[in-house]
Amino acid sequence: MTMWEEQVLDTARLRDDAVTLAHGSGGEATRTLIDAVFREAFGNPLLDRLDDSARFAVNGADLAFTTDSYVVSPLFFPGGDIGELAVNGTVNDLAVSGASPLHLSAAFIIEEGFPVADLRRITESMRDAADAAGVDIATGDTKVVQRGKADGCHINTSGVGVVHLPPTGEMRPGDAILVTGPIGDHGATIMLARGELDIAADPFSDGLVSDELVSDTAPLNCLLADLATCCPGAVRRMRDATRGGVATVLHEMAAESGLAALVDEDAIPVRPAVRGACELLGIDPMYVACEGRAVVVVSTEAAEAALASLRAHPLGADAAVIGHVHDDPPGTVLLKTGDPLPRIC
Amino acid sequence: MTMWEEQVLDTARLRDDAVTLAHGSGGEATRTLIDAVFREAFGNPLLDRLDDSARFAVNGADLAFTTDSYVVSPLFFPGGDIGELAVNGTVNDLAVSGASPLHLSAAFIIEEGFPVADLRRITESMRDAADAAGVDIATGDTKVVQRGKADGCHINTSGVGVVHLPPTGEMRPGDAILVTGPIGDHGATIMLARGELDIAADPFSDGLVSDELVSDTAPLNCLLADLATCCPGAVRRMRDATRGGVATVLHEMAAESGLAALVDEDAIPVRPAVRGACELLGIDPMYVACEGRAVVVVSTEAAEAALASLRAHPLGADAAVIGHVHDDPPGTVLLKTGDPLPRIC
Repeated sequence: MTMWEEQVLDTARLRDDAVTLAHGSGGEATRTLIDAVFREAFGNPLLDRLDDSARFAVNGADLAFTTDSYVVSPLFFPGGDIGELAVNGTVNDLAVSGASPLHLSAAFIIEEGFPVADLRRITESMRDAADAAGVDIATGDTKVVQRGKADGCHINTSGVGVVHLPPTGEMRPGDAILVTGPIGDHGATIMLARGELDIAADPFSDGLVSDELVSDTAPLNCLLADLATCCPGAVRRMRDATRGGVATVLHEMAAESGLAALVDEDAIPVRPAVRGACELLGIDPMYVACEGRAVVVVSTEAAEAALASLRAHPLGADAAVIGHVHDDPPGTVLLKTGDPLPRIC
Repeated sequence: MTMWEEQVLDTARLRDDAVTLAHGSGGEATRTLIDAVFREAFGNPLLDRLDDSARFAVNGADLAFTTDSYVVSPLFFPGGDIGELAVNGTVNDLAVSGASPLHLSAAFIIEEGFPVADLRRITESMRDAADAAGVDIATGDTKVVQRGKADGCHINTSGVGVVHLPPTGEMRPGDAILVTGPIGDHGATIMLARGELDIAADPFSDGLVSDELVSDTAPLNCLLADLATCCPGAVRRMRDATRGGVATVLHEMAAESGLAALVDEDAIPVRPAVRGACELLGIDPMYVACEGRAVVVVSTEAAEAALASLRAHPLGADAAVIGHVHDDPPGTVLLKTGDPLPRIC
C-alpha cells in the first residue's frame, strides 16, 4: 500500500464530524485523527515518523525537538503536579529519542481567577523538576483566558536536546522487551484523585491503601543515557509509556516494525495498589498511563546487561524483561497465553 | 539595585491573589506576573533576557528557540485564522531575534465537540503559512479536553531557528525607530469580529467599511533577513508588535536601554479603517496588536538604507521612520508633542 493509499484510507476512517474525548485517548482514534487531519495537512519526512521527537541536523549539530501540552485534572495529585509532569514529560520525550535534553520552553494558558499561590506552586515544582533533569527553562509565554475557557491552567513545554544515540537498527525477532519499572502508577493515581474510584478505605484494608498510589512522574534522561552507554548499538527502540500505557506503545512498535510482540503478563511489574485500583475499575494496567516509565527494546544478547544497567539506577530498580519480539503474526501484540492484547479505540 | 532587590520589589508589586485578564494584556501587569512568578521560579540568564527567543549554541550551531500559545477568539477572522497566526507568530519571534526559522512544533488542545471541518481548515491554513515562511511542522501533540475546558481550539507553536544576525550593539541616542508597516490592523479586526464595535455600516460610509479591516498576520522572516543583509551591523533591535502594540514594544525598549524613545505621531502609518475603529472604541492604535509588523531600531546612518530595504519588500511597502532614540528622560516614551505615552496596565 502506498503512502497515498494509506492516507486516503485513514481519511475515510475518520467518520466523526466532531472531535471526541476518544480522539485524545492516545489509542486508535487519536492515531486516526493524527493521520486524517494533521499528517494530511502537514505531512513531511520528520513529522511522518511520529516519533517522540523530531531529529534533525543544524550546522553539524544533531538535535532533537519535541512538544507536549499538559491538561491533567486535578492539577495537584499524590506524587506530583502538572508542573512536574510538564517538565518530566518533555525531558522523557527527548530521552527516549536518544537525546540529552538541553533547554525547555514553558507556555502557560491560565484561566482568569486562577490562584497565584497555585501558579507559584506549579512553577516551583517545574523549577525543581528542571534542576533534577539538568535542563533550564529558556523561554516562555503567558496567556490568560476568560473563565470557562480553560481548566485552571494548561501548560505546553517544548524541548531541544542534543542527540547522543545514533539511529538504531530496526527491531528484530528475538529482541527483548523491557519496562523500566512498575506500570500504571500515574494513571491509577489520577483516577483515584478524580474520584473515579468510588470506594471507601475498606477495599484497601489489605495493604492497598490509597496512600500507596502516587504518580511515577520522573525524568528518565540519566537512566536511558546510562543504558545507551552500557549497551552501545544494542538499543533498538525506546518509548515512554504515557497515554494508552505500555499496551499502546507495544502496539505502535509492532505496527511500525511489522513484527509481533509476545508479552508474559506475569513478568510485568505492577504494584499491588495499582493492581487493586485497576481491578476495581475493571481496566488492565497495561493501558494505564505512566509518566516515568519507558518501554525499551534491545537485542537478545544485550538483554541481561541492559536489565542490569537499568536496575543499577534508582528509577530502574524494578525494571523487568516482559517479553520478546517475534516475526509472526505481523503487527500484533500477544500475551503468552495466546490471547491478543487489543488496541484501545 | 541588585537583581535580588529588583525581584523582591516585583514580588511585592504582584498584589493580586488571582490571575486576571490584565495579566494577559502584554502590558505592565503581564510583566509583573512574569517577574514575580515565572522569573522568580525559573530565573536563568537565557530566560532573564525576556527576548522573543532564547539564543544558545549547541555543538557550534547558533540556535534560537521560542514558544507561543495562541488563544484568539474568534478562531476565524478577516485576513486569517488561529492557524495562520500560530505559524506566523512563532516565525516572527525567531525572525526578530535574528534567526532563520527552520522547524516548528504544533500542539493542539481541542475542546470536545469541536468540528473536524474547522480543524481541517485550521491545519490547512497552518500548512500554507508554513510553506510561505519556508518552515516545516516537524513534531506535534494533540490533547482533547471536556466541553467547557477550552475555547474550541488552543494552539501552541514552538520554533527552532538558526541565528544569522550576530548580537547587535545596544541602542544609542540618535538611532532611528522604524515600523515595517501600518499598525493595529490585526487587533482592530479582532475587536470588530468579536462585536466589540457595536456599530452599523454608517460610521464606515466614508470609506471606512469593515471590509477594509483585515488582520495583518504575515511572516516577517524574509523582510527582516533582507534588512540585516542590507545594513550589516546597523540593526540595534527588532521586536514584533503583538500584544500591547507598538507602544508596549517601545516601552520595553526604553526600559531595557535606559534611554528615551521620542515618537512623531504624525509619522506613524495607520490605515483609515483602523483609525476609525480605534476612534469609535476610544483606544490609541499604538496599543493595538499587530501580527505582521515589527519595530526596528537602526543606527542614524543606516536609517535611509533600512527604510529603502523594508519598502522594497511587499510586506514593508508602507514602512516608516516614526521616531528617534534620545538619552533623556531615561526609560520613557514621549510623543513629539512632549506628552508621555503611558504604559498600559
